[in-house]
Amino acid sequence: MNAEIITIGDELLIGQIADTNSYLMCRHLSENGFKINKITSLPDESDTLVNAFQEATKKADIVFITGGLGPTKDDVTRAAISRFFNTTWNISMGVLNRIKEFLEERGYSMNDSNHDQAKVPDKAKVFINQIGTAPGLWLQKENTNFIFLPGVQFEMIRLLKKQIVPVLKERFITNNFISKNINTQGIPEAYLSEKLKNWQEKLPDYLQVAYLPSPEFVKVRISGWQKDQIKLTKDIEKAAEEIRELIPGYFVSIGNESMEEILGNILSENNLTVSTAESCTGGFIASEITSVPGSSRYFKGSVVAYSNEIKTKILNISPEIIKSKGAVSEEVVRGMANSLLHLYNTDYSIAVSGIAGPDGSTPQKPVGTTWIAVGRKEKIITEKFLLGTIREVNIKKAAYKAMNMLRKLIIEDLEKK
Amino acid sequence: MNAEIITIGDELLIGQIADTNSYLMCRHLSENGFKINKITSLPDESDTLVNAFQEATKKADIVFITGGLGPTKDDVTRAAISRFFNTTWNISMGVLNRIKEFLEERGYSMNDSNHDQAKVPDKAKVFINQIGTAPGLWLQKENTNFIFLPGVQFEMIRLLKKQIVPVLKERFITNNFISKNINTQGIPEAYLSEKLKNWQEKLPDYLQVAYLPSPEFVKVRISGWQKDQIKLTKDIEKAAEEIRELIPGYFVSIGNESMEEILGNILSENNLTVSTAESCTGGFIASEITSVPGSSRYFKGSVVAYSNEIKTKILNISPEIIKSKGAVSEEVVRGMANSLLHLYNTDYSIAVSGIAGPDGSTPQKPVGTTWIAVGRKEKIITEKFLLGTIREVNIKKAAYKAMNMLRKLIIEDLEKK
Repeated sequence: MNAEIITIGDELLIGQIADTNSYLMCRHLSENGFKINKITSLPDESDTLVNAFQEATKKADIVFITGGLGPTKDDVTRAAISRFFNTTWNISMGVLNRIKEFLEERGYSMNDSNHDQAKVPDKAKVFINQIGTAPGLWLQKENTNFIFLPGVQFEMIRLLKKQIVPVLKERFITNNFISKNINTQGIPEAYLSEKLKNWQEKLPDYLQVAYLPSPEFVKVRISGWQKDQIKLTKDIEKAAEEIRELIPGYFVSIGNESMEEILGNILSENNLTVSTAESCTGGFIASEITSVPGSSRYFKGSVVAYSNEIKTKILNISPEIIKSKGAVSEEVVRGMANSLLHLYNTDYSIAVSGIAGPDGSTPQKPVGTTWIAVGRKEKIITEKFLLGTIREVNIKKAAYKAMNMLRKLIIEDLEKK
Repeated sequence: MNAEIITIGDELLIGQIADTNSYLMCRHLSENGFKINKITSLPDESDTLVNAFQEATKKADIVFITGGLGPTKDDVTRAAISRFFNTTWNISMGVLNRIKEFLEERGYSMNDSNHDQAKVPDKAKVFINQIGTAPGLWLQKENTNFIFLPGVQFEMIRLLKKQIVPVLKERFITNNFISKNINTQGIPEAYLSEKLKNWQEKLPDYLQVAYLPSPEFVKVRISGWQKDQIKLTKDIEKAAEEIRELIPGYFVSIGNESMEEILGNILSENNLTVSTAESCTGGFIASEITSVPGSSRYFKGSVVAYSNEIKTKILNISPEIIKSKGAVSEEVVRGMANSLLHLYNTDYSIAVSGIAGPDGSTPQKPVGTTWIAVGRKEKIITEKFLLGTIREVNIKKAAYKAMNMLRKLIIEDLEKK
C-alpha cells in the first residue's frame, strides 16, 4: 500500500503558513498503518494540480489531498477535479442539508455561494462534514484512490479520523507501524551514534533508527512496519531498553513527553514543589513549566532577575560578589538558588545566569557561558556550560539542561530514601 | 526563475515533526524574489532521492534541499548525491577546521564520525557552516542548481540567509516580490475582512491580500510580484497606509516586527523600563520580552506568582482580597502591577492573572477569563478578557494583549508630553 499527500495553497509556497495539515495527517495515518511515501505542496493552479494527480496515479494507491476546497478557494481545485476525473458537479442533498443546518445554528440563512458549495462531483463518494460545510470526496482514477479533504485543520482531521480512515483501513491495511523515541541529553548526536554503532548493527533488519537533535533532547527514534504487531511491539521495546542500558548517563526517557512534562510528573507524583530564579533565560523555564496543565500543583513561581539590581534587591546577592565574580558565576547562581528556596519556600529551586548574547561577553566568558544551579536547602549543585553563540538556542539549551539537572537530583534524592 | 524545495526525512512522513524548515525557507526566499513552485517531502531512501533530483532537472532552475545531511544521516543523501552527480567525496580542509573549532569550543575532540563529516563532493561549491558542522553544498546538473542544506533549522536558515541567498539573488532574480504585513489586534478576522471589503475591491489587480490570524496579531498581508520595483513598493505602501486609516483602533504596526520587538523599541527609544508580574502567563511575557537581543536595556525582571502565597508574600496582595475577589480579579492585578512598580522600580509594569485552564474555572469565571493591568505609578489601567478554552492559546493571547495595552498607554503618555 503506497500513499501520498498533496497539500494545496499559495500560502504554503510563499511561507505564509507552515503545512501542519500534512504533519497531522501523517501522524494519524502512520498510527493506523498507512505508509506515506511523499508529501507535495502545490500552488492554487489548475494545470499544476491536474499534472500532479496524473503523476500520482503512476505510483500511489491512495492520495490524500487537502486545501483548495472551501468558500473562497473552490474554483481552482474544482476545475482540476472536473478535468482530471472527467466529471460534472451536482447538488448533493446531504451536503445541502448540512450547510443549512450549519448556518441555522449560527443564525444565518443560505445565499447563492452557500448553495454552490453543496455541489459535488457525480463520480464521488461523499463524506458529510459534521463540524463544517465542505465535505470530503472520494474519487478513483485507474487504480488510484483520491481523497479530497477541506483545508480547515480541525474539520480535516475529524473527517479523516472518524469517517475516512475507518473505511480505508478495512480495505487497505495489513501492516502495522510503531515508533518509539528514546530521549537523551548531554551527548552530541555524533557521539551518541558512535556509542550505539555496534548495537545498531545487531538490530532486526526491518527496524529503522534515526537521530533527531534539538535543544531539548537528542532523540533516538526506532521505528518499523510489520504485519505481526506483537513481534513489532516486542522488538521495539527491547531495542529501547537496550539503548537505556548502553547510555545510562545520558538517558532521559522513552516516549513523547517533553522535558517539562517529565519533570512535572516527578514533582507531582512525589508531592514536591519547585521555583525558578532566572537571569539569561528570562522566564523561559517558568513559562515551559507552566505550559503543562496542572503545573500549579508543583510550581509556585519565579523571580526573573534580569538586572543585577534585582538580583541584589530580591534575591539577596551581594553587590560585592557580583562585582568580584561577575553576574555569570557559580557564586551568583548558587546564591540565587539558595535565596529562592527561602523566599518561595519550595522543596527545590533552579537558578540560571548566563550570557545569552549577542552582547555582554568578555574574553573569559564568551557568549553562551552559562552557570546553572539546582538544589534543595541542604544541597545545591552547580554546573557551567558553554552553549554556543545563538541567543535563542542558548536560552532553550540552558532551560532544558537546568530541568534535566533537577530531574537527576530529584531521582538521586528519591533513591536514597 | 523556477525554484523548488525538497525536504528529506522519514520523521516528516510518519508525522513525528512538522516540516517547518520548508516554511521558513519559503518565507525567506519569497521575500527575496524567489518563486517556489513546489515543496516535496521524501523519506531517507537513496533511490527515491535520485528520482526526485532527476525529476527536478526537468523544470527547476534551483532546487533547495534540506535534511539528510548531518553526523548520522549522511549515508542515504550522500549515496544519492554520489550517484546523481557522479561525484566522489574528499576531505575539505575548510570544513574539517570548522568541525575542529566547533568541537573545541565545546570541549570535545574529533572522532571518526566527525572526520567523515568533513568530506564534501569534489564537484560542489562549499558553504562553511559558521554555527554548526554540516556545510551547505552547491551542485549543478544540466541547467539545474542544487543547494543542499543541513536539517538543523537555525543552521539551515543562517546558511541560507547569510551565505546562499546573497549569491543566488545576484544571479537569478529579475522579478521582485514584496509583501507587507499590517498588524492588527482586537478585531476578529471575519470582521476585519468585512471592514476592508470595499477597499480590497479597489486594489491594483496584481496585488494579493491574505488574512493571517494568530494569538499575537491578525495580520493583513499584501503582496505582489512585479518587475518595476518602484511601482510595486509604492502601491504596497499606499495600500498599507490605507488600511492604517481604515482601522485606527485596531492598527498596531506595519512590518515584520513581533509585539515584543515593537514594545521593546518604544521602551528603548524613550529610555523607559518595564517589569512584569505574571500569574497565568507563568513567565511567558518575560520570556517573550527577553527573547529580543538588548532587552536588558529596558527590562528589569519579573515576579512569576503562580501560587496565591507568592502573590501575598512577594507582591503584597492581601489574602482577604484574594479570598473575597478571587485571584483572577481587577483588584488583584491592579495590586500586582502597583507592587511591582515599587519592588522593581521600573517606569511601567504589566500584571496578568487569569484562568488558563483546563482546571480552575467557576460558573462566574470560565476558562479563559483573564484580568490584565498595565501602568505607571500615577495611573494603572485594567481590562478583562475572555480568551477561549485552549490553555496554550489563552496564555499567548493574554501576553500579547498585555503588551499591546502597555504599548498604547506609553504612546498616549508620550503624546501628552
